[in-house]
Amino acid sequence: MYPARAGSFTRLRYNRPVPSKPNGSVRLSDVAAIAGVSISTASKVLNGTDRISEATRARVLAVAERLDFRPNALARSFALGRSRTIGVLTHRATSTFSGPVVIGAVVQLGKLQQAALVFDEDVLVHREITESIRQFQARQIDGLLVIGDGHERRSPSITHHFTVPVTYAFAASDNPEDVVYLPDNEGAGVLATRHLLERGRSRIAHVTGDPSSIAVRLRERGMLTALQEAGLRPAAPTRFGSWAEGSGVRAMRELLDSGAEIDAVFCGNDHIARGVLEVCEAMGLRVPEDVAIVGVDNWEGIIVDQGIRRLTTIDLELRALGELAAANLLADDRTPGENYVSPTLVPGPSS
Amino acid sequence: MYPARAGSFTRLRYNRPVPSKPNGSVRLSDVAAIAGVSISTASKVLNGTDRISEATRARVLAVAERLDFRPNALARSFALGRSRTIGVLTHRATSTFSGPVVIGAVVQLGKLQQAALVFDEDVLVHREITESIRQFQARQIDGLLVIGDGHERRSPSITHHFTVPVTYAFAASDNPEDVVYLPDNEGAGVLATRHLLERGRSRIAHVTGDPSSIAVRLRERGMLTALQEAGLRPAAPTRFGSWAEGSGVRAMRELLDSGAEIDAVFCGNDHIARGVLEVCEAMGLRVPEDVAIVGVDNWEGIIVDQGIRRLTTIDLELRALGELAAANLLADDRTPGENYVSPTLVPGPSS
Repeated sequence: MYPARAGSFTRLRYNRPVPSKPNGSVRLSDVAAIAGVSISTASKVLNGTDRISEATRARVLAVAERLDFRPNALARSFALGRSRTIGVLTHRATSTFSGPVVIGAVVQLGKLQQAALVFDEDVLVHREITESIRQFQARQIDGLLVIGDGHERRSPSITHHFTVPVTYAFAASDNPEDVVYLPDNEGAGVLATRHLLERGRSRIAHVTGDPSSIAVRLRERGMLTALQEAGLRPAAPTRFGSWAEGSGVRAMRELLDSGAEIDAVFCGNDHIARGVLEVCEAMGLRVPEDVAIVGVDNWEGIIVDQGIRRLTTIDLELRALGELAAANLLADDRTPGENYVSPTLVPGPSS
Repeated sequence: MYPARAGSFTRLRYNRPVPSKPNGSVRLSDVAAIAGVSISTASKVLNGTDRISEATRARVLAVAERLDFRPNALARSFALGRSRTIGVLTHRATSTFSGPVVIGAVVQLGKLQQAALVFDEDVLVHREITESIRQFQARQIDGLLVIGDGHERRSPSITHHFTVPVTYAFAASDNPEDVVYLPDNEGAGVLATRHLLERGRSRIAHVTGDPSSIAVRLRERGMLTALQEAGLRPAAPTRFGSWAEGSGVRAMRELLDSGAEIDAVFCGNDHIARGVLEVCEAMGLRVPEDVAIVGVDNWEGIIVDQGIRRLTTIDLELRALGELAAANLLADDRTPGENYVSPTLVPGPSS
């Protein structure tokens, strides 16, 4: 019995048009007949594709509403030449941080009634990028969202392969004419530092990752800018290392050993902040009374223990970034250039 | 200059069918004319929708191939009554674990040339579920993937609202006739325990989360099954608590204080394993020589420090679960029932 049922599913799917239930029984021809117009006229009214007299338009719309007519989505796409499908190319999106961008994008596209045709370049690794492009074109996508893994490197622009809008999310393109959405790493540094200043801190140190990383440099620059606005300088030279917790542990020990007087540490990410917190606890320093700590990423697996948030952090709003970039593809204003998505402060007990 | 260009993008998108570049210039009418058949006949051959003589079919196909004809995707969808769009409803998918399921699903759908129309019920919280259903129907989806957040509770089946296939991923449905994909929590317990046995351990304890959780009970049952196969019993009664690191710390201290002789701990998740590891390190116990540790989840933020994996864990393969469930919608065999996705062992230095 089970296989038979499964089989009937399959047959239904492949051999018959899918009825639009429960109202699929009302056809455009029904609307046209009752409104007393041709099918062509009814179609034009409902699709808004031609000039029709106001009286006719009103009559057709009234009938369509009365019959609860739902246009055939496939016929409509065909008539309007729009697939209502957006291509999503996860292009060099290897980091875990691109996940929320993808989720934000596909959910936002759904809100806008757009389907997402997702090609993951990791999956297509043995194909040329041109094969993805060809497939997107064959599917007549209405726009393309390219999702990368941050802006440590500029990706080659692929916009010129398409006649439809292309937007880059979490990916820096090498073409300044492209529309690009990036997290605001500099803004994260400003936000964290202003928050510490508001908390009455004035001897703020910075412990962060690899100095060759653009994100590291931008977060540091934001911190320096906010300190400068307040007429201050860092309490110690920036300590560079890696993004890891152990790097935070080592840097914080060195900072304390150096005799630097500090009342706060802005950490380049949450892993480092976690390491700094460990050292403070081991040394009997009170957090935030003696040393306030702020991280970056809002990486809950790192900073929430037993459901309790341990650290103040800056959320780069990567899901919102995906949402904004997706919405941009359908927007009227698609000004070229880089858009920086505002980070938010997520308060915790460490500041 | 920039706004003008942005405007031209917009105009292009809304008012013109998108040409399928670079081969969009070859039309069905070209193929028909060169093959010496009507457009209708050419269409029937290329869409496989009617009986046509073998000679005519061969001639049309040869011409189509010679001209590198790519059918208009929208016309093709209309003709075949298939949208090549799969609805994805993230239904009560509030946990961070549903993220990889969604990513796996949309990437797999892309591989199968299916677009994903994603509705997030969290977004649609003020609408009735019937509104999502109506919108999916209006869009004439070819199938629906319902993504939940595990199987702690059974969700009401919505299959009866659709004439197209419906598959549930990471969501237990209350209808046994539904096709459901779930992680294999019991298998995770078996896999972890067999691994510890292979490593020569025989005094294995279990530290885990809330005993009211189905996942907790299934992982425990898997452990007990694997021990029984080996003619063994647990080294101590299962210690229940929460999924948090601190719960692992407390349970491990209690275990050691109780004088239980143990040479391994199977932990219900990676957070707990991390806590157990901390206690071992603090007590001077060598890991894995004195106590081997295995967690569950492969939650990299928790178990990888400075790029170095600290713990052996079981990966529930949630991304693969999303891929399998998505592929199932397009498969010939859609046998009803619950499918359990095999977990994998991710070796680390703790065992």
